[in-house]
Amino acid sequence: MLEELKKRVYEANMELPKYALVTFTWGNASEIDREQGLFVIKPSGVPYEELTPEDMVVMNLKGEKVEGRYNPSSDTPTHCVLYNAFPEIGGVVHTHSPWATSWAQAGRDIPCYGTTHADYIYGAVPCVRVLTKEEMDEGYEVNTGNLIVEEFKERGLDVNAVPVVLCKNHGPFTWGKDAKEAVHNSVVLEVVAKMAARTEMINPEVMPTPGHLMDKHYFRKHGANAYYGQNNSGQEKI
Amino acid sequence: MLEELKKRVYEANMELPKYALVTFTWGNASEIDREQGLFVIKPSGVPYEELTPEDMVVMNLKGEKVEGRYNPSSDTPTHCVLYNAFPEIGGVVHTHSPWATSWAQAGRDIPCYGTTHADYIYGAVPCVRVLTKEEMDEGYEVNTGNLIVEEFKERGLDVNAVPVVLCKNHGPFTWGKDAKEAVHNSVVLEVVAKMAARTEMINPEVMPTPGHLMDKHYFRKHGANAYYGQNNSGQEKI
Amino acid sequence: MLEELKKRVYEANMELPKYALVTFTWGNASEIDREQGLFVIKPSGVPYEELTPEDMVVMNLKGEKVEGRYNPSSDTPTHCVLYNAFPEIGGVVHTHSPWATSWAQAGRDIPCYGTTHADYIYGAVPCVRVLTKEEMDEGYEVNTGNLIVEEFKERGLDVNAVPVVLCKNHGPFTWGKDAKEAVHNSVVLEVVAKMAARTEMINPEVMPTPGHLMDKHYFRKHGANAYYGQNNSGQEKI
Amino acid sequence: MLEELKKRVYEANMELPKYALVTFTWGNASEIDREQGLFVIKPSGVPYEELTPEDMVVMNLKGEKVEGRYNPSSDTPTHCVLYNAFPEIGGVVHTHSPWATSWAQAGRDIPCYGTTHADYIYGAVPCVRVLTKEEMDEGYEVNTGNLIVEEFKERGLDVNAVPVVLCKNHGPFTWGKDAKEAVHNSVVLEVVAKMAARTEMINPEVMPTPGHLMDKHYFRKHGANAYYGQNNSGQEKI
Repeated sequence: MLEELKKRVYEANMELPKYALVTFTWGNASEIDREQGLFVIKPSGVPYEELTPEDMVVMNLKGEKVEGRYNPSSDTPTHCVLYNAFPEIGGVVHTHSPWATSWAQAGRDIPCYGTTHADYIYGAVPCVRVLTKEEMDEGYEVNTGNLIVEEFKERGLDVNAVPVVLCKNHGPFTWGKDAKEAVHNSVVLEVVAKMAARTEMINPEVMPTPGHLMDKHYFRKHGANAYYGQNNSGQEKI
Repeated sequence: MLEELKKRVYEANMELPKYALVTFTWGNASEIDREQGLFVIKPSGVPYEELTPEDMVVMNLKGEKVEGRYNPSSDTPTHCVLYNAFPEIGGVVHTHSPWATSWAQAGRDIPCYGTTHADYIYGAVPCVRVLTKEEMDEGYEVNTGNLIVEEFKERGLDVNAVPVVLCKNHGPFTWGKDAKEAVHNSVVLEVVAKMAARTEMINPEVMPTPGHLMDKHYFRKHGANAYYGQNNSGQEKI
Repeated sequence: MLEELKKRVYEANMELPKYALVTFTWGNASEIDREQGLFVIKPSGVPYEELTPEDMVVMNLKGEKVEGRYNPSSDTPTHCVLYNAFPEIGGVVHTHSPWATSWAQAGRDIPCYGTTHADYIYGAVPCVRVLTKEEMDEGYEVNTGNLIVEEFKERGLDVNAVPVVLCKNHGPFTWGKDAKEAVHNSVVLEVVAKMAARTEMINPEVMPTPGHLMDKHYFRKHGANAYYGQNNSGQEKI
Repeated sequence: MLEELKKRVYEANMELPKYALVTFTWGNASEIDREQGLFVIKPSGVPYEELTPEDMVVMNLKGEKVEGRYNPSSDTPTHCVLYNAFPEIGGVVHTHSPWATSWAQAGRDIPCYGTTHADYIYGAVPCVRVLTKEEMDEGYEVNTGNLIVEEFKERGLDVNAVPVVLCKNHGPFTWGKDAKEAVHNSVVLEVVAKMAARTEMINPEVMPTPGHLMDKHYFRKHGANAYYGQNNSGQEKI
């Protein structure tokens, strides 16, 4: 079942080591078929070099395994919560990519310091707090997802405009319209995290990018008046 | 038209991922045919792995597309302003290379800390301010170019001696006698930016290179008395 | 003799340059056959590109060479002490991997700042003091091993839960159930060391990971209730 | 003439980009034939990918070109001074390798923070001052060499025990018994420079390695009682 989707999810997972976002098995990508209400995810702890499309695991939105010879990724319940809470998203990725994880370990939002960030992420990358012992005992991975959902609600964030999040002391989750875009956003986040740390090293007094530059770059690539790339109304601004 | 030029511009663009200066489509190189008053530039948002020489877009110096099935790079108006203002330059490159972009995000000139810098760039790498909302609304990319031109005029900089600039909160532009040299200068800038940040980390009290060492190295490679390499008067200084 | 073991030790050694943990010959891996009381280790100073399985040296637990045309690694006495003191371990690795060595040179324990660390190492990575001149004159490599053993005893550390150590002004040793796992732990340590340094750069006031998160992650992968990967009781927690 | 030597010098030069020590043409290696009093060096400004053994330039110890169609490296006079002043050395290398150059730009000696350093370099890596304008006008490259020689004399350093030096605001020179060993020492210096900077980042209060550890490691690899590797008396210390 879902052969095409398994292939896409397999390919998205294989991009993670290619972009140096994962060491060993420390990452996972999934994608959902919204019509069927099923998502496909990487199995837990299987080395990337041994993965095949058939190894992918099919899950339903209650978090039950529907098909697959392997256990799904241990982070599957987090993916499941995100799919349930955010109907706009079609793919989710989790990694321990070194720079994003260093910000997560530092427990700080990543401020927007430039247009590389603003082209993809509207405002700071949010860092959610660590779970309490009680929340963790109740269900670590489910409550990790719940915490992300609450944080977005409390801060009034749009998951389309902020397709990335950091979990304190842990690492990043990213998403997108499909697994491929979620991987793309993981790459962006790693670059943005690296440059933000170096920006503060070069100028410890640096201030975030002015709002009008954030607006300009974000809306140059997104929304009705976008003019970056080939998939827009095509008007040239010159 | 301009088949040779398109090929050269294509090849210059392909050097950008090779030297790890761009992630995804975050960069563009162009070159001008001064006799015809036309320049050739990379299309907007097309992945490097899919680019062909025929995809390059031909523009005139009014910023109008003359030939090409794709939209030109969204940064094309900046290139156009630079070609109009600086008749000495033949190629322009823009990237988001991580170290140069970190300095741009930090909003600082890169001081000259050594001969690697001095061999190519005479004095500090200038960082121009961010555009105001009004300047941005009027024409973001055109005014980015105008700001660079004004800054060089105000500081009395020679575009031949300072073939690099940082745009605050954004990233670097570089130029040269052709696209290939502009790419070369982008590589130099990235190395120089990396070493300058580390120099300050190792010695927070460091001072810029003395002027006589800057002179010595710059004029060892440039001008009538140059003696580096094979393309000079050939006298050996020993 | 021990052809299979030599092959495994050879392969483990060849992983070290592959993971960029060693420059030139600065590393060594060994594995023990507990039944025979013999361990196999890399020869001293032989370039990785020239190594063959037959070059591996067989040692007994008194530290005597039993077979091999080459001198064993100069760090062999340290491996020997660890095998004698810690019957649970089957493989040992020593490298000068840059980030772990930088912490060793800094003379600091690596605090646990996140789940990447907690998944493999329970608590901080200990850094043992430098040997005195007397201890060094008596037997540098033997006493390096003795110091590690004492430190684990004094701190009450379990070698299974803390399979890594730093030797001040020198570098890391790691271990595991076999040479392959010891190499795996060397890779983990290098990533953890890198991210911890960056974490402190991003947030100089950062505190170690709360204990309940360390517990959760460590026991998600280890012990009777582990549910990460495929080699556990198989229950899914969803 | 000197075909074998040209080949060795060519191969040593080709190692420099392989170990990521040079960008473009920013480096050069040479080796001397002491009997004939001639040394062979890379030509100036020729890209590495186009180099051949025949392109190497033959020089005498007065600094005169004896054979070769190209100009020699612009740093040739520095090499020449070193060969004249230090009869023990057989090969010289100059690069702009990023970490060593960052220390040179910072104008600081690299303290010995650990055994990786102590295995190859006895004590700190010296950083010589920048030339005055007068010294530079008189002969930049020759006086760079003279300054290194004076510094070693003033500090009482042994070129065998300290085969590396930094020139302030410029970059490193290294040497060895031949060009290959000089390249080896350039690689060591770059690793040592990288780890020393990170060591200070991790612990700003760090102190240099105790003298007895420096002695132990240096003499474990060098001199009559060396026991590292296969080329020594062969006694095992266990």
